[in-house]
Amino acid sequence: MFEAHNIGYFFYNGGGDSQDTSHKVSQIARRLGYPIVCIGIPKTVDNDLPITDNCPGFGSVAKYIATSIREAGFDVASMAKTSTKVFILEAMGRHAGWIAAAGGLAAETPSDAPHIVLFPEIPFDEERFLAKVDAAVKRYGYCAMVVSEGLRNADGKFVAEAGTRDAFGHAQLGGVAPVIAALVKDKLGHKYHWAVADYLQRSARHIASKTDVEQAYALGKAAVQFALKGHDAIMPTIVRLSNKPYKWKVGMADLADVANVEKKMPRDFISADGFGITRKCRTYLEPLIKGEDYPPFKNGLPQYVKLKNTPVKKKLRKHFNI
Amino acid sequence: MFEAHNIGYFFYNGGGDSQDTSHKVSQIARRLGYPIVCIGIPKTVDNDLPITDNCPGFGSVAKYIATSIREAGFDVASMAKTSTKVFILEAMGRHAGWIAAAGGLAAETPSDAPHIVLFPEIPFDEERFLAKVDAAVKRYGYCAMVVSEGLRNADGKFVAEAGTRDAFGHAQLGGVAPVIAALVKDKLGHKYHWAVADYLQRSARHIASKTDVEQAYALGKAAVQFALKGHDAIMPTIVRLSNKPYKWKVGMADLADVANVEKKMPRDFISADGFGITRKCRTYLEPLIKGEDYPPFKNGLPQYVKLKNTPVKKKLRKHFNI
Repeated sequence: MFEAHNIGYFFYNGGGDSQDTSHKVSQIARRLGYPIVCIGIPKTVDNDLPITDNCPGFGSVAKYIATSIREAGFDVASMAKTSTKVFILEAMGRHAGWIAAAGGLAAETPSDAPHIVLFPEIPFDEERFLAKVDAAVKRYGYCAMVVSEGLRNADGKFVAEAGTRDAFGHAQLGGVAPVIAALVKDKLGHKYHWAVADYLQRSARHIASKTDVEQAYALGKAAVQFALKGHDAIMPTIVRLSNKPYKWKVGMADLADVANVEKKMPRDFISADGFGITRKCRTYLEPLIKGEDYPPFKNGLPQYVKLKNTPVKKKLRKHFNI
Repeated sequence: MFEAHNIGYFFYNGGGDSQDTSHKVSQIARRLGYPIVCIGIPKTVDNDLPITDNCPGFGSVAKYIATSIREAGFDVASMAKTSTKVFILEAMGRHAGWIAAAGGLAAETPSDAPHIVLFPEIPFDEERFLAKVDAAVKRYGYCAMVVSEGLRNADGKFVAEAGTRDAFGHAQLGGVAPVIAALVKDKLGHKYHWAVADYLQRSARHIASKTDVEQAYALGKAAVQFALKGHDAIMPTIVRLSNKPYKWKVGMADLADVANVEKKMPRDFISADGFGITRKCRTYLEPLIKGEDYPPFKNGLPQYVKLKNTPVKKKLRKHFNI
């Protein structure tokens, strides 16, 4: 297909699987002796690619989750005395807790939401969790938390799949938030509400991080520049130079070193009790959500570009006379 | 209590129940011969108070829902060919479909998200719904929808409560979105995702409507002015003067006419097939989401005022010598 269409450059943006694909395409092309430049571009809200400081997309979803739990926290605090006492926001992250961790940025003092963050990296301990919820409700009047969709029990099973059945008898309607909510209601008796942001969080361009937008453009540009210089099977990266002020530059990693490596939250980014983020984590995350970059609005709604996605003419059969 | 603290003015903002309370306080005070001015101030995202053109809070949640379904729609459209084909966003509104209706504003053409809106005012017809989903997936490649939490079956039961059980055997984990999602999966086999925005939608000050913010301040101010003029048992209202350009002024309604009246979506605001909004509805809703009014941001997060909520000294016992 590349030959038929005379394609010499292959850019592919995405997370771990996409980088693996870029790497494979590059390897296959070399084996077949076809000259093509393959560049992977990091782009995943999961923020789980290795080597790069962070992944474009993450800073914005981080800003969304931190903003949302702060806002919902004020809502719950205002009525906790007579109504909802526990609020659970489910964040994405099947294997790594980066997005849930970002929720922790909203708490400037221990009394602020979120009072608890649950990570996939820390096995869920029901008893200690319930004690923590109880303590927050007693101390602050309410408990707001961010739960990662990838939360697992000590035996490695997703909590979201732990026996929930819908009206049709299917396992898992989906959602760890309702499972945690039911647990809190069952064991502590508190009135609860829960939210599952799902795609809303990763498509929320209206609350994008300026830092994130700048890095996304910079890496796209760097990808083209690296390609024109003939670099193959590489991925542009973000290299952090300093925290305060946040300084960074574009670097380069071999796709061979990126493919199939999943960067989880380091243990020292998670507080000793497993229910929050450390100062070190905060220092890492803070610059990534900085700055606002609002889209244009028309009639009260954000205006986004619609791609035409016009297919090119098929050439494969004709080129090879098949 | 009012007498002990020498309180002569009682302001109470909220929805239907709160207006009813204001009205009752006013009636009781008159009966007891205690001179107090009671003013209700409309404030409910449900937008279901009568007489007033709309209710402060609604314009902003409307903007949030329309923005969110537009953004998530782009996400789903981008990958529908090989992944998620059906997306369901659950919106608040236990009895009235105003918030779900606002989601309809995101669709400028029939191919745009949302392709379906489900209202509490229209009994859920499973067969016709599934045919509509199927048609959208075939025609546009995907189907994005907004579902009101108050959606009911033909027999008047909430769809969210239609038999869903959690791991502990409780009825209803909550959420109509996962129930609809499971139905789509079961009957049509499409891969789905769903989101329940819950409190996120009504606390999302970061995406507030400027029109809404202006009206909220105007009604608060009017409440004080009306009180100082001695009006009792009334509620300031928004009176719509024209649609394009949107012009409005502050009016006044008797609490007796407001209490216990629930304004649902008029039938002619809902399309003939029951799955969308009409031009008339669009004309009503459009001005309410207009304009942006961003909060101040610090370190990447919106900054909100924290009230001190310092209690006054208790006086009741001393005042009455009890």
